[in-house]
Amino acid sequence: MGKAHSNAYCQALHFYDLPFTVRRTLLCGRDEAALTTMAARWGWEETSTDWRTAIDRKDIDAVDICLPNHLHAPVAIAAAEAGKIVFCEKPLALSVADARRMVEAARTVPTLVWFNYRRVPAVAYARQLIDEGRLGTVFHYNATYKQQWGPDTSRDGTWKMDPSQAGSGVGDDLLTHVLDTALYLNGAITETVARTRTIAPNRAVDDAIMALVAFANGSAGTVEATRFGIGCKNRKTFEIHGSGGMVRFNLERLNHLEFLDFSEPSTEQGARDVLVTDMKSPIFGNFWRPGHIIGYEHTFIAALAEFLQCLANNQDFHPNFADGLLVQEAFDAVQRSAKSGQWTRVANA
Amino acid sequence: MGKAHSNAYCQALHFYDLPFTVRRTLLCGRDEAALTTMAARWGWEETSTDWRTAIDRKDIDAVDICLPNHLHAPVAIAAAEAGKIVFCEKPLALSVADARRMVEAARTVPTLVWFNYRRVPAVAYARQLIDEGRLGTVFHYNATYKQQWGPDTSRDGTWKMDPSQAGSGVGDDLLTHVLDTALYLNGAITETVARTRTIAPNRAVDDAIMALVAFANGSAGTVEATRFGIGCKNRKTFEIHGSGGMVRFNLERLNHLEFLDFSEPSTEQGARDVLVTDMKSPIFGNFWRPGHIIGYEHTFIAALAEFLQCLANNQDFHPNFADGLLVQEAFDAVQRSAKSGQWTRVANA
Amino acid sequence: MGKAHSNAYCQALHFYDLPFTVRRTLLCGRDEAALTTMAARWGWEETSTDWRTAIDRKDIDAVDICLPNHLHAPVAIAAAEAGKIVFCEKPLALSVADARRMVEAARTVPTLVWFNYRRVPAVAYARQLIDEGRLGTVFHYNATYKQQWGPDTSRDGTWKMDPSQAGSGVGDDLLTHVLDTALYLNGAITETVARTRTIAPNRAVDDAIMALVAFANGSAGTVEATRFGIGCKNRKTFEIHGSGGMVRFNLERLNHLEFLDFSEPSTEQGARDVLVTDMKSPIFGNFWRPGHIIGYEHTFIAALAEFLQCLANNQDFHPNFADGLLVQEAFDAVQRSAKSGQWTRVANA
Amino acid sequence: MGKAHSNAYCQALHFYDLPFTVRRTLLCGRDEAALTTMAARWGWEETSTDWRTAIDRKDIDAVDICLPNHLHAPVAIAAAEAGKIVFCEKPLALSVADARRMVEAARTVPTLVWFNYRRVPAVAYARQLIDEGRLGTVFHYNATYKQQWGPDTSRDGTWKMDPSQAGSGVGDDLLTHVLDTALYLNGAITETVARTRTIAPNRAVDDAIMALVAFANGSAGTVEATRFGIGCKNRKTFEIHGSGGMVRFNLERLNHLEFLDFSEPSTEQGARDVLVTDMKSPIFGNFWRPGHIIGYEHTFIAALAEFLQCLANNQDFHPNFADGLLVQEAFDAVQRSAKSGQWTRVANA
Repeated sequence: MGKAHSNAYCQALHFYDLPFTVRRTLLCGRDEAALTTMAARWGWEETSTDWRTAIDRKDIDAVDICLPNHLHAPVAIAAAEAGKIVFCEKPLALSVADARRMVEAARTVPTLVWFNYRRVPAVAYARQLIDEGRLGTVFHYNATYKQQWGPDTSRDGTWKMDPSQAGSGVGDDLLTHVLDTALYLNGAITETVARTRTIAPNRAVDDAIMALVAFANGSAGTVEATRFGIGCKNRKTFEIHGSGGMVRFNLERLNHLEFLDFSEPSTEQGARDVLVTDMKSPIFGNFWRPGHIIGYEHTFIAALAEFLQCLANNQDFHPNFADGLLVQEAFDAVQRSAKSGQWTRVANA
Repeated sequence: MGKAHSNAYCQALHFYDLPFTVRRTLLCGRDEAALTTMAARWGWEETSTDWRTAIDRKDIDAVDICLPNHLHAPVAIAAAEAGKIVFCEKPLALSVADARRMVEAARTVPTLVWFNYRRVPAVAYARQLIDEGRLGTVFHYNATYKQQWGPDTSRDGTWKMDPSQAGSGVGDDLLTHVLDTALYLNGAITETVARTRTIAPNRAVDDAIMALVAFANGSAGTVEATRFGIGCKNRKTFEIHGSGGMVRFNLERLNHLEFLDFSEPSTEQGARDVLVTDMKSPIFGNFWRPGHIIGYEHTFIAALAEFLQCLANNQDFHPNFADGLLVQEAFDAVQRSAKSGQWTRVANA
Repeated sequence: MGKAHSNAYCQALHFYDLPFTVRRTLLCGRDEAALTTMAARWGWEETSTDWRTAIDRKDIDAVDICLPNHLHAPVAIAAAEAGKIVFCEKPLALSVADARRMVEAARTVPTLVWFNYRRVPAVAYARQLIDEGRLGTVFHYNATYKQQWGPDTSRDGTWKMDPSQAGSGVGDDLLTHVLDTALYLNGAITETVARTRTIAPNRAVDDAIMALVAFANGSAGTVEATRFGIGCKNRKTFEIHGSGGMVRFNLERLNHLEFLDFSEPSTEQGARDVLVTDMKSPIFGNFWRPGHIIGYEHTFIAALAEFLQCLANNQDFHPNFADGLLVQEAFDAVQRSAKSGQWTRVANA
Repeated sequence: MGKAHSNAYCQALHFYDLPFTVRRTLLCGRDEAALTTMAARWGWEETSTDWRTAIDRKDIDAVDICLPNHLHAPVAIAAAEAGKIVFCEKPLALSVADARRMVEAARTVPTLVWFNYRRVPAVAYARQLIDEGRLGTVFHYNATYKQQWGPDTSRDGTWKMDPSQAGSGVGDDLLTHVLDTALYLNGAITETVARTRTIAPNRAVDDAIMALVAFANGSAGTVEATRFGIGCKNRKTFEIHGSGGMVRFNLERLNHLEFLDFSEPSTEQGARDVLVTDMKSPIFGNFWRPGHIIGYEHTFIAALAEFLQCLANNQDFHPNFADGLLVQEAFDAVQRSAKSGQWTRVANA
């Protein structure tokens, strides 16, 4: 992820007018050789093998945390307490308790959680259609995130496969993305019943999670994440049916949003394949000409740029730590349900 | 449905070589004027307003039941006891108990349940790929059936909206189709947790059902049916991920099956949009030349024709009443879970 | 084709209210055994190995010509002169001169040419959008018909590969379909420059034709037909761009029409995948419920039924022999251009 | 285009290991204020309103020409004669004569023409499949480039609408891209017949071009470009049918290549939707993880990076000025044919 973040720091000011400069001051990590290479490639001025250096330095305004999940809380809290702006990779924390402590610690500093997919233009456009009432009363919300590398055991030694560092497997890795998008587009989840499975032998974390969910707006649906979605390189989807229409999305074709307007005459209705690359499309207009599509990395650039715009305008940025906590609470309910087998309420929902 | 069945009786011998003739002897129903019109149009020789006439007549070999669901059991049992071949619309019955009595009564007569979608060439082809081991070990099975006429209250007076005649709403109507396809392609369902919802005000039957399911083969997934799937005219889908590949299907484009072969080199993998209209494709070869697609009605023609082939060859036809009972048992678990909120075992699974 | 026609005669009255009965009186052909089998299967009352029998019989009102192309003219002229209604497979004739003689001979009898694809609901819907002005001023018309059986030399002995019987190869077989659709949707073609190719060795007819065309309405574009369109089972397409929008069609998914409405706000525009299976969609409403798709054969059923409706109402049916002649004139210009290499005017256009 | 080029200079070394550093030394242009803004945003060290400054400076190794088309020749020739590496926007020149002079002048310096679409991973993958013989003998090559801004007259005052600066309209702008891809994938074009049209009133350049083309490899097809392709934001397509299979591409979904392998059993064949984002896919592996798609700008980054790799390894880069000349020769035949209405040979083909 360091690559995607570094890229965002390089690129944000190329595509957005912002009243800031962004310096890549200090790159921290454990492997000194890797740090040196990375710093040289991406223009980081200095490196350190101790993340506390970043927190101690007065000339550093913001700390960006791309660490294994279990380190998010201690580093974020330290940074926030030092008055830094804090950016944190998703998921926010290993537990609701940690996430709450992070929110608490960061109460007075601007924060960002890298649920970058909110900045896919097509996702932002879906949100815009919803805000405009184009979908009407929502009935169904279905979402999945399917990848296919689960059968590959060569990654079994990485931190992502270690519960003490990653928390869970596909849950923390992919389902939290699904949940954040759901909260962003469809509001609070109230309760869930879920099941997790570990498919690969000898693996300590879950490979697949499926859940039924109910939303505060009265809609309901399914959410699912898997590393055994054979055939799916990076298929994160949602499909929303409301009284006014439908939207459907797939991250593998992230420049597109399918939109059906149910107010059209019945003979004319069809899911429009909207190429969300108009100069007036959300986010996209900062990049290229219509139809000249963007990719994965632009979601990080846009998130950072919008954060800086908010900072300049003294506005709240989302998703921030509070939003990350909401995801954590929903995910916690999923995990508790997976253990108990019962329908489970989401805390505070 | 009488139209689709009548059509099958007219067409089966046009497209299949069968050692039978099919006479449309007697059309029964309640409305005499409608019967006369229908009989004239579709070449039924006689009509009757009493279904017992069909059972009493010695020159009638087969009885086809297209009645509201609550009448399936009494008519089927009477017909079977009279030694008739019995065809029955889906779902087989209103309850597992009824379905069992039907299976029992029909033990010595050939039967057919109109889960016609098994005869979509693309569905049969998916089954063939599975039988050949092309999908390997199945990990995930996701299926939906979404229609959009739920908001239309003009049908609220029909038997499909009356629990005493229909049993349930979208459950009996659409979810049983989803379950039959699931059993056909992925084997027995062992347990489920489900939720039903009635979305339209003042409606006595369910409009939407969603469930998590576990299969005897170790896979798991989601099944869902709704009449509020705005944007979906007749979208019945499945998506199966196995160690060997993936298939994906949508009834609205029923001549197509998406198939991904995971044994291909990784750079070459992609979901193939197979137009299942080859002369060697299952079922299709009886109809037209490659690429000259077929539609909804052909599933009935093919089911009838294959039934008659089985009859001629003294083979078991599927889906028969026993298959219909399996669907009923799975659906019963869904309904019990929807009431209890608990994970619920499927009887005999 | 006899199968598709026989089917239409069986089915038209099942799906349409028509003030006629259709008897399948006499089936003519050269192979007596094949005739007997076909007649038994499709309910033809009698057979004859002499097509003149059909023309001589007073109890026969209509003659349907499914013969090799070179026989269309003599049989159609004889039938028309005997006062029969005449149906004729496409293309109408081997030459413009023959086609003109046919039109002349049939001046007082109702006629039909089996350019059946005008009765695809999606094609009829495209025409409706055009008639309503939804596409505005047309700029571009692109159309293709691609099949892939060219490399298969097993058919080289059939009449379709014999210029004296077929006229040309892919030209008469597929390009005439493309031209008829073009005339139907976009009006007269005024001039063309074309090239034909015979790709398979030792073949006497063309395998591929490509042409630039200009239309009387000021638009221009490309038309193409090939038997070497590897990867295309039966891909007949058109794409039309006008000041008001776009439509796009592919026969392999004949229930769909892509439609883009350029009057929508630019951020919302996208090609709608309209599933042309609404109860109010043209043609479709006679068949099944929304989303329960139809196939190839329904185009023949609908053409026959609409012919009979026109007959009952004393209206002109299209495409009739005069329409067939227009196709012939356009195709003649294509053929002349292919020989001369010059831009060539279409006669009477 | 300066933005896309500047971006490439910033990004190439972030994603590729290259034995060079790339300095953004001097930005030239006519508008001093615009230069200052652009230089500040993209990190250009200095600016100048006289392009000759770049050629005169000894510390500058490479000159990149993003000027109106009519200035390509004089600047490129001056730069090449000064011994600079020369990069030039497409098309190479306004005329074949100019292009030849440029090739001649640049005989001893490395050159690049920004036909960036060769570096779309899916296009490179198509080329790889062709090189491996997977498509076999090519029969058909169809390509289009359709945009929809033609009706917008607000750009009528720009240099792109002035024949003396742009040469032609959609021809130089879009058709040259189509031709370069055709030459890259299918080899030399030998002859063509073409027509151009100016659709907007009072416009001095062509808005639409269509042509039939024959290739040296025996295949033939159509090429087309338009600014009146309503419904198409940036739809650059090709479709190739060969004895071994088919590929199909659309720039609006540039991470995908449809590929059909005709050697598969006929029942299994279907166009695979290959998401060309595997770690082993051409080009893509330098960027992100599988399925994390890239966009328009990456084609520039990859072109520059591969140029530098070639430079380091003393290899020829393509497309260079000689490749640009080939495009010019093909386009010249298109233009001559559009004037004469005759089939026209491509010079040197």
